[in-house]
Amino acid sequence: MSAGPDRLHAIVPAGGAGTRLWPLSRRARPKFLLDLTGSGRSLLQGTVDRLAPVSDSITVVTGRVHASAVADQLGTDARIVPEPGPKDSMAAIGLAAAIIARDHGSDAVVGSFAADHLIGDRPAFERAVATAVAAARRDDVTLVTIGLTPTHPATGFGYIAVGAPLDPGEGTTSDRPAGPAAGVDDPPEAPPAARPVAHRADGFQEKPDAETATAYLAGGRHLWNAGMFVARAGALLDALRTEHPDLHDGLQAIATAWGSAEEGAILAATWPHLTAIAIDHALAEPLAARGRVAVVPADLRWTDIGDADSLATVLESGADAGPDAIPDAGAGTHAGAGGPEDGPAGAGVVAEPHTVVVGDGSPGAFVHAPGRVVALHGVPGVVVVDTGDALLVTTREMAQGVGRVVTQLRDAGLGDLT
Amino acid sequence: MSAGPDRLHAIVPAGGAGTRLWPLSRRARPKFLLDLTGSGRSLLQGTVDRLAPVSDSITVVTGRVHASAVADQLGTDARIVPEPGPKDSMAAIGLAAAIIARDHGSDAVVGSFAADHLIGDRPAFERAVATAVAAARRDDVTLVTIGLTPTHPATGFGYIAVGAPLDPGEGTTSDRPAGPAAGVDDPPEAPPAARPVAHRADGFQEKPDAETATAYLAGGRHLWNAGMFVARAGALLDALRTEHPDLHDGLQAIATAWGSAEEGAILAATWPHLTAIAIDHALAEPLAARGRVAVVPADLRWTDIGDADSLATVLESGADAGPDAIPDAGAGTHAGAGGPEDGPAGAGVVAEPHTVVVGDGSPGAFVHAPGRVVALHGVPGVVVVDTGDALLVTTREMAQGVGRVVTQLRDAGLGDLT
Repeated sequence: MSAGPDRLHAIVPAGGAGTRLWPLSRRARPKFLLDLTGSGRSLLQGTVDRLAPVSDSITVVTGRVHASAVADQLGTDARIVPEPGPKDSMAAIGLAAAIIARDHGSDAVVGSFAADHLIGDRPAFERAVATAVAAARRDDVTLVTIGLTPTHPATGFGYIAVGAPLDPGEGTTSDRPAGPAAGVDDPPEAPPAARPVAHRADGFQEKPDAETATAYLAGGRHLWNAGMFVARAGALLDALRTEHPDLHDGLQAIATAWGSAEEGAILAATWPHLTAIAIDHALAEPLAARGRVAVVPADLRWTDIGDADSLATVLESGADAGPDAIPDAGAGTHAGAGGPEDGPAGAGVVAEPHTVVVGDGSPGAFVHAPGRVVALHGVPGVVVVDTGDALLVTTREMAQGVGRVVTQLRDAGLGDLT
Repeated sequence: MSAGPDRLHAIVPAGGAGTRLWPLSRRARPKFLLDLTGSGRSLLQGTVDRLAPVSDSITVVTGRVHASAVADQLGTDARIVPEPGPKDSMAAIGLAAAIIARDHGSDAVVGSFAADHLIGDRPAFERAVATAVAAARRDDVTLVTIGLTPTHPATGFGYIAVGAPLDPGEGTTSDRPAGPAAGVDDPPEAPPAARPVAHRADGFQEKPDAETATAYLAGGRHLWNAGMFVARAGALLDALRTEHPDLHDGLQAIATAWGSAEEGAILAATWPHLTAIAIDHALAEPLAARGRVAVVPADLRWTDIGDADSLATVLESGADAGPDAIPDAGAGTHAGAGGPEDGPAGAGVVAEPHTVVVGDGSPGAFVHAPGRVVALHGVPGVVVVDTGDALLVTTREMAQGVGRVVTQLRDAGLGDLT
């Protein structure tokens, strides 16, 4: 990887089990390690694949318990920073940023991206990153976030209020032709897509209620916060020193010792005492209040595959979902396709390809039960996930509440299954 | 068994796979061979247990393919008559009646009872049989049926129209004290329950539409036809000779040779040509039209366990369902009961005792998945049946249509699973 003006040093915090996707996801087999879409690549691998063209380096911060699995999946594609224990996103991103600043200088631009999201429109993502990197180099900006055009009044995401466009000047790119990273996959006859324009972020809102979310969508001034933050490493660490000096100092101490003989001792002495806080609260909100945050609006065909409904929607969208959403589009992702034994699948049933589904009256159903014969009768929108050791039956409408099942299993002494 | 005035020779036609109970029931493992209620006795064994106190002999007529399984379950409790192939109920009952007439004389009273029904109130059943046997001995009656008090406007059963009470006289029992078979299980302080009064049957109606069924229930003059027919063997065979002489003659020829060296040859030459017809159409309807049928109204807490909804209702009713419905009543039949690993079962979930069910928001759900951990979330009334080789998901409301799934499986080349 060679440094370039539009490129960054990517940070991928890989944590969180994804309990709403139980029983597919487990503590020991978190969402980011899974190949949920049957692409042959896990969500983490897809994230690294997507970041490679825009990155000078990729650093994955993950729990020690997952470090070897992550290394198995990524090989030499990324540096792995194992955390002794979960300390939320600020510690993970801050440690990686401090290591990057040590190795590449404080002017290196870093960007954090979740390990378990899907992005259907990669060229649009690359254009958004280029705009974000340029904005992060401006003197009047400390932190840049990429905000996603909302497609429905979601109550499960935070929102970003969009302000005025940044003044043209260094770092604004709206009047420049698309760079080489943009439009790579566009048909030759189409004009190159323009990079998006960075705006001032007026603020961050926590997950809203349904009424507020509907108003956000109608107003057109709010974007989803998907945790994509871009900044110069030095600016990010300076801001952290201001907001959370203890956390800053601890992370700097660890970063200084990283890779040396003292690493273990410093980690053991420091990590347990670090403040556990999300970067949204630690930096984004206070910096936005001081007018130091920019937001890059982007329409990326993004999803976090938060639950089985979301996964089913991705699988349903098939060929339209983009390169890292559905590599094997079409009939192959649908019920019963793939062999002479296939039964008359219910119309609109989405199933894992190695599942045979018969029955009818169950449009919109989602079945993941590899190697099994599953009969659905009159259960539209049902979700059936069979992992051998556990069987979940819910509906797509209710799937977002499956995390409660995980809690119940643990309360019932069945935590081994979670 | 010793002959008695209230006793009969019981005939149990054991056929039909019960496709609506798939995947619990299969062609090779039909409903009557299953212990659906966890009583330790199959439905067939329960039927024989229930008939023993009122019978001088019990003859089970079943397909050749099931004869050894039936023999394994019943031992010496019943004579088994294997049919070379299915010829509907008239041939099965007629052959057994002809064999009984040959062995016990034409005045022997026979009664046919399905192999796969449940009866919750055994004393009431015994009183109804006593009345039916007495009615069958009357000169003005050829055929007696026991009609069940309907509890809801079912469209899945035929109905019997009830006429005037039979004239008192030989065979009417309303003015007699209860016999020894009645009130056996009643508390000592309760007065002995009276035997029911036989009425003339004005006719038989096929399965009605919902409007007609509602009118039947409101009118109070219609009873469910559960296929319980009682008659003197000679009278039944005489009527068959009148209505279907070829069928009568074929069955008589077979019965004469039954157990002799000629049995096989006669069966092979005769059975394939017999008319396949139900006793309802062959005898009950034409005899009712001539005023020769009596009906004994009875409230037996009866069910045919037609589908998973019906099975769930039986299991829910627990202790109230009577001796051959739920032997192990109460918590043991409910989700998660039985061990320290049990999770917080959803309120009102009925599950096979060896299934652990967690989750919530699923009242009225029915789960049969022995040895599995099943999580339900927000699926009230769902039906989940896992037999290892197949997994069915439907709802209690839709369960009566599961026979269509069986058809689809066969059409899809998956008939081995049916």
